[in-house]
Amino acid sequence: MSVIRWVRFRASDGGIGFGQWEDDGIVEFAGDLFDSPEPTGRIVAMTSVKLLAPCVPSKVIALWNNFRALASKLGKAEPAHPLFFFKPTSSIIGPDEPIRRPRGYLGKIVFEGELGIVIGRRCKDVPAEDALDYVFGYTCINDVTAADILNESPDFAQWSRSKSFDTFGCMGPCIATDIDLGGARIITRVGDSERQNYLVADMIIPPAELVSRLSRDMTLLAGDVIACGTSLGVGSIRDGVTVDVSISGIGSLANTLVAPA
Amino acid sequence: MSVIRWVRFRASDGGIGFGQWEDDGIVEFAGDLFDSPEPTGRIVAMTSVKLLAPCVPSKVIALWNNFRALASKLGKAEPAHPLFFFKPTSSIIGPDEPIRRPRGYLGKIVFEGELGIVIGRRCKDVPAEDALDYVFGYTCINDVTAADILNESPDFAQWSRSKSFDTFGCMGPCIATDIDLGGARIITRVGDSERQNYLVADMIIPPAELVSRLSRDMTLLAGDVIACGTSLGVGSIRDGVTVDVSISGIGSLANTLVAPA
Repeated sequence: MSVIRWVRFRASDGGIGFGQWEDDGIVEFAGDLFDSPEPTGRIVAMTSVKLLAPCVPSKVIALWNNFRALASKLGKAEPAHPLFFFKPTSSIIGPDEPIRRPRGYLGKIVFEGELGIVIGRRCKDVPAEDALDYVFGYTCINDVTAADILNESPDFAQWSRSKSFDTFGCMGPCIATDIDLGGARIITRVGDSERQNYLVADMIIPPAELVSRLSRDMTLLAGDVIACGTSLGVGSIRDGVTVDVSISGIGSLANTLVAPA
Repeated sequence: MSVIRWVRFRASDGGIGFGQWEDDGIVEFAGDLFDSPEPTGRIVAMTSVKLLAPCVPSKVIALWNNFRALASKLGKAEPAHPLFFFKPTSSIIGPDEPIRRPRGYLGKIVFEGELGIVIGRRCKDVPAEDALDYVFGYTCINDVTAADILNESPDFAQWSRSKSFDTFGCMGPCIATDIDLGGARIITRVGDSERQNYLVADMIIPPAELVSRLSRDMTLLAGDVIACGTSLGVGSIRDGVTVDVSISGIGSLANTLVAPA
């Protein structure tokens, strides 16, 4: 099957649309992205639109400790079940939108380049062998963290708060369907330097198993996103610097950290 | 101002509606609950409908360690900032819906009776003195936990997973506006016995301050819910037993734990 790259956009008239990203522009569709959308017959120039996060999830499930190389470096046991937190949907931004440093927070802000799985239809209790039938496609994620908050309380690790600020869930540029993840690499560049370059295949709990396991915990809905966790090379971002997460077959997601005005 | 109790319901024809719960039935409204809904002129009999969770949040923020009596018993310092996790919206159920024990999980399931704050309009960075202007009303919450999962991993406290199962976010029976929380008590009964009975006023970070602080972290949207945390008396539920959370001025939220078929 050929790869389709779905994008969502704000048009010059302010309206929100979606379509298939082709060399000569966006082939616009209408209806429900996840339920037989129909082409409108229009081709929209990429230069005339602002790309948005490619879907509107009801939830974003984000994995911790899901890559062998990082688990090994940190000396952590490989988890038997997905270890996760949620990012609120209010944290989501699309390509080229600024990551905003929280007002009053002067601490470290950390990037994490990740593969995102986008669910295509409602699923609950699906076996791993059927799980990919429920996956619509894949996107790039930058799971941003206000790292100094994470362990601020001795009693309660703040995975939720440190990762929940507005603009801390970067997603895009598209949802790519039918891509071959076998040799795919996740590459994160910070400014001019490459900081992460790791194989999707090093994942401890791979996509089919992840979807299956998570669907046993909770109902996954069309558009829900699973951020698969990150690997070696995570680090901090200085204000004004751009983080670019790229995955072969999907594209590149760039966001710049900006300080409050 | 008089207290209005808003309910959401499924009618006998399967349609979903909402309205004001009065002694003689539900005064039905149409439109957006949070944006000048209009009465339809119909009165719907309570006996003809099934009450649902009273709103459809984009996120549920749930507090940990937010009552003085429990913090003191556990020997935990009072937090300087709200400590929280998220419950996914897929976990939400309404009054009288069953709490379903996750298939394959034989461990302890714990109830937590809580006050829920329902946000009425979009807010970001609101000062505490204005925060109550953004509160639509209050509801009862039972924040259910698969307690054996919480500390299953030595590396990662599973606040998110242990509280994220479908049916683990009980909410209702209504959203009560303009209630006086000054002397309000949260009372949780398990079967025939009262297990929690505590004052809302014992909250460490009270509603106005909570909304203000959380709105500095992230944008709160109309319908978003803040579960304010629980106090003394938390415990486990046996299969087949009903948990009833009641708050004066709001009403009573009853849900029964059922084992998988």
